[in-house]
Amino acid sequence: MGYTVAVVGATGAVGTRMIQQLEQSTLPIDKVRLLSSSRSAGKVLKYKGQDVTVELTTEDSFEGVDIALFSAGGSVSAKFAPYAVKAGAVVVDNTSYFRQNPDVPLVVPEVNAHALDAHNGIIACPNCSTIQMMVALEPVRQKWGLSRIIVSTYQAVSGAGQSAINETIREIKEVVNDGAEPKDVHADILPCGGDKKHFPIAFNALAQIDVFTDNDYTYEEMKMTNETKKIMEEPDLPVSATCVRVPVLFSHSESVYIETKEVAPIEEVKAAIAAFPGAVLEDDVANQLYPQAANAVGKRETFVGRIRKDLDVENGIHMWVVSDNLLKGAAWNSVQIAETLHERGLVHPTKELKFELK
Amino acid sequence: MGYTVAVVGATGAVGTRMIQQLEQSTLPIDKVRLLSSSRSAGKVLKYKGQDVTVELTTEDSFEGVDIALFSAGGSVSAKFAPYAVKAGAVVVDNTSYFRQNPDVPLVVPEVNAHALDAHNGIIACPNCSTIQMMVALEPVRQKWGLSRIIVSTYQAVSGAGQSAINETIREIKEVVNDGAEPKDVHADILPCGGDKKHFPIAFNALAQIDVFTDNDYTYEEMKMTNETKKIMEEPDLPVSATCVRVPVLFSHSESVYIETKEVAPIEEVKAAIAAFPGAVLEDDVANQLYPQAANAVGKRETFVGRIRKDLDVENGIHMWVVSDNLLKGAAWNSVQIAETLHERGLVHPTKELKFELK
Repeated sequence: MGYTVAVVGATGAVGTRMIQQLEQSTLPIDKVRLLSSSRSAGKVLKYKGQDVTVELTTEDSFEGVDIALFSAGGSVSAKFAPYAVKAGAVVVDNTSYFRQNPDVPLVVPEVNAHALDAHNGIIACPNCSTIQMMVALEPVRQKWGLSRIIVSTYQAVSGAGQSAINETIREIKEVVNDGAEPKDVHADILPCGGDKKHFPIAFNALAQIDVFTDNDYTYEEMKMTNETKKIMEEPDLPVSATCVRVPVLFSHSESVYIETKEVAPIEEVKAAIAAFPGAVLEDDVANQLYPQAANAVGKRETFVGRIRKDLDVENGIHMWVVSDNLLKGAAWNSVQIAETLHERGLVHPTKELKFELK
Repeated sequence: MGYTVAVVGATGAVGTRMIQQLEQSTLPIDKVRLLSSSRSAGKVLKYKGQDVTVELTTEDSFEGVDIALFSAGGSVSAKFAPYAVKAGAVVVDNTSYFRQNPDVPLVVPEVNAHALDAHNGIIACPNCSTIQMMVALEPVRQKWGLSRIIVSTYQAVSGAGQSAINETIREIKEVVNDGAEPKDVHADILPCGGDKKHFPIAFNALAQIDVFTDNDYTYEEMKMTNETKKIMEEPDLPVSATCVRVPVLFSHSESVYIETKEVAPIEEVKAAIAAFPGAVLEDDVANQLYPQAANAVGKRETFVGRIRKDLDVENGIHMWVVSDNLLKGAAWNSVQIAETLHERGLVHPTKELKFELK
């Protein structure tokens, strides 16, 4: 007997890739149910060549569901994930809503699969920009320890959803086909749907992802800080981020600077990353080999290169980390969590409901 | 009596902007002479509405020239700049060839105009990515001192010349109009003309600008390190850079992390930057005000924002620095050097030729 798997937010940029990842998954799946808001309910999508009609998400949608993958925004997860748990499902939530909840494991399977053992029905998938950094840095942390992380990101617009992809292409066409100045192009969505002003991303770089917090960092930047500490179980690890949207559709790139607790020989760092599951070393500058966003699209791995010592600080290392933000950054990490739950025998109803029914 | 000013490399992306900046300059100019290679000689360009025919650059081109602005590549400067000095001109060289020569001042006028006083006929204009960082950081260095710089750049393709601009637009059209995958688009120029392999920049980010040096940093990255030390006259200041090309046509953006020698209150840092010549503070995150590449195009200033304390390190500060790489990063800084030479009475023939005639 296989599982019934539900995808909530099935028609979005991440949801459609969750369906693809389930099609390629090792999970024993009997049935896939696709859920959405009223805007998309009734649409017909394919799963392994078969038509599946998208259903409206309700409190009663999760009867008989074993695994529910959520990627429809934090408010949808807040409202419906507890009902899914109550109905006996295990939820893998791709939104930020439950990530800092102490009852919710925040998991990158290569890094902290053990955290799944204590789950209470909801497992959170970290933010895209955090996940790929974890895959690159965990092998370094395991061998030499980490005393500091500074990261500057180059993030694809697909992190803001299909509408941001569409907006970017429309803006770029207005510049290259119609001769518009980038600064004069109209924008409705980026830097983020939830803020007041919108700016063009065509031929631009926007040093804002998500809204600003009280400390002048954005929520995206604070996600990288707080999620890193939780995943690595290093609450005192200093992490500061600058998160930037660039006119790239798919795959995030990151310029990562770390200091290790013990001095780490660069060739050993490269070997440790190359040997780590989910990480691919692409580092041969004599042959111009380094990770590229365009090459990472559609791949599950995190690509790491440009690994080099800081010029002055003995325990300082710089590197360039690239991964498909919709796959390892979202859909694949979520499905991979589901696979890991299955392998560990953790796909089962939760007895005590720890989450508020709203 | 005004000056005769020559522009070497007049038809390039920087050269054409040097002509614009001369048109708007306060320099007393009697005559402008436009020089190029044989490929462009004979073309007719405008200066203040008048036709000027582009001449072939030769060893004898500089008779009667008072100021020569060079931006035609390092080999052209190496060959012809000494002849210009011998003929009595003062050279402002925009290439990297003379920048580390101890007989050549490397100047950002707001930062180290005093270095011009000791010139020997050639003054070097720093690399685009260095210049804007200097304008942002010098006011901080003056008040609190700097003990460390880490920078990740988001550089426009125009830094690689007009042909890179053309290539980028062609590649992007192949993706948005013809449906090509970014990874499959053909590239001839980027990441840099002088290296063996070429990669698409459309919807990509390339962690290579210029070729690699022996220490696994690129020359572009080492320019930021070495030029910063020379301009700031801080040979022991730790500076490490990661230089990245992004699909932006004009204006470089930089994520800059610094540590100050003395702890610097953030509001005072903002005030110091706002008061510094050539710098514009754009920092009001409550109103989503921060520098944007698209907004900096065509402007001479360097825009600074997202200024905030590191989350853990008391003397650590992050900021976002944006400027038009062809103006402050090249053409305007060169013309500004010429204006500063004039104001200081330093436009005169050099008695002892310190540069080899090749």
